[in-house]
Amino acid sequence: MTQSPLSEYARFAHRLADASGAAILPYFRSELAVEDKGGKAGQAYDPVTLADQEAEHAIRALIRSTYPDHGVLGEEHGHEKGRSPWTWVLDPIDGTRAFITGGPQWGTLIGLNDGERPVLGVLDQPFTGERWIAYDGRTEFRARGVTRRLKTRPCASLKDAVISSTHPWSYFSDGEQAAFRQIDARVRMTRFGGDCYAYGLVAMGLMDAVVESALKAWDVQALIPIIEGAGGVMTTWSGGDPQEGGQVVASGDERLHAALLKILAKAA
Amino acid sequence: MTQSPLSEYARFAHRLADASGAAILPYFRSELAVEDKGGKAGQAYDPVTLADQEAEHAIRALIRSTYPDHGVLGEEHGHEKGRSPWTWVLDPIDGTRAFITGGPQWGTLIGLNDGERPVLGVLDQPFTGERWIAYDGRTEFRARGVTRRLKTRPCASLKDAVISSTHPWSYFSDGEQAAFRQIDARVRMTRFGGDCYAYGLVAMGLMDAVVESALKAWDVQALIPIIEGAGGVMTTWSGGDPQEGGQVVASGDERLHAALLKILAKAA
Repeated sequence: MTQSPLSEYARFAHRLADASGAAILPYFRSELAVEDKGGKAGQAYDPVTLADQEAEHAIRALIRSTYPDHGVLGEEHGHEKGRSPWTWVLDPIDGTRAFITGGPQWGTLIGLNDGERPVLGVLDQPFTGERWIAYDGRTEFRARGVTRRLKTRPCASLKDAVISSTHPWSYFSDGEQAAFRQIDARVRMTRFGGDCYAYGLVAMGLMDAVVESALKAWDVQALIPIIEGAGGVMTTWSGGDPQEGGQVVASGDERLHAALLKILAKAA
Repeated sequence: MTQSPLSEYARFAHRLADASGAAILPYFRSELAVEDKGGKAGQAYDPVTLADQEAEHAIRALIRSTYPDHGVLGEEHGHEKGRSPWTWVLDPIDGTRAFITGGPQWGTLIGLNDGERPVLGVLDQPFTGERWIAYDGRTEFRARGVTRRLKTRPCASLKDAVISSTHPWSYFSDGEQAAFRQIDARVRMTRFGGDCYAYGLVAMGLMDAVVESALKAWDVQALIPIIEGAGGVMTTWSGGDPQEGGQVVASGDERLHAALLKILAKAA
């Protein structure tokens, strides 16, 4: 990528992802204590692992020692306000259900917000050795030593679209489920179980959209630059700024996005 | 593993998986012609790729030259009957939807049937470099040069169980969907999008069961030795022999299996 004010932060973000992956991998598929933060079985079940906490701890320590003025917002250890506009927005293991069931569809999310919006994003999958990074309007993908620029694929209408969501009902209200089923009936294919990895596949031009709800800021901030830098669009279901999470839709093609918003608006 | 009459075939099965992976990987996430074998959008959509066909061709050529008496049954090129009881049962890309959407939850399935039942099974994921192999009542897993024996985990009842299925409705009739929703309401967690990879995670003790329908012989024969060799159980929804496919359930613990069959029997 070209040298920009953000390229220094991008190099640092790679270090954060390296440190996070090193903290997490020893726990993947190992016997580990799972602390249940959620509610009833099958409903709001939201496991969090030691790996998540250790990785966030490692990332926060690096930020504190390198950019002590920067703020940090993360799932496990809350919001440390900074003395500059910059805030790192972290979710070391997005997709904890994938993680604890041994699947590779989880990832580490590292976003950097300039005080107004996320301007840099990393999605890292240390088990498969895949990393997405975006800033300055570009999204790049690195795997096995090869880096390439990503571009979403064209998809003009619902009937050609492959749409992903993490689960068909666990994270949706009844109204949201109904809207998703309406989409399902009109598209080429729906896929489930993707978590953050699905956004990476939209950026790669392999899927057309992700439709989700009940997201937090740390679930989305890293992904916004990744989707936008590859040519896609990411908004709330009512078309607004998605950076606080909630109901979020990310599309590779703005024409598909408009068609999705028409259906999703009813449940927004 | 110990030397048994099957160990020669196991070494050969590794060669088949190597050849298959080499044929498939160049197509993964590349621009490729997808031939639609299925019916309407979102319903019976069943894409098959050049990769699938080339891999099956490569596997069949190796079998023909090495064991010309053996039969071969595969999704792409049909049933070649052999002059011996041995039949190789193949699906080079199980999980074509995962494959064409860029996810790693697809795999190559290679089973060997002795004329009565599958006695050797391989599940290979060439993108992540993971291979499951089972024969002589043992299941082993190899990744990054390390091989270890697998064991399913105990799970006595539905409330503790993590259950997987490839899609919540695409492959289920209305009655089957209702049975699955009944299971969903009683278990700890359901996961979707797993395809054959989910059976591998049950064998590893990371998930507790897979519940599926509309399967073919080549979708299941390699997986039966893998589930059984790790200590699990695999039957039809009515408790019968699963080797012809159809409605299939694979569990890591026979107590959970019995609880699942009670619900599934109504839709069997």
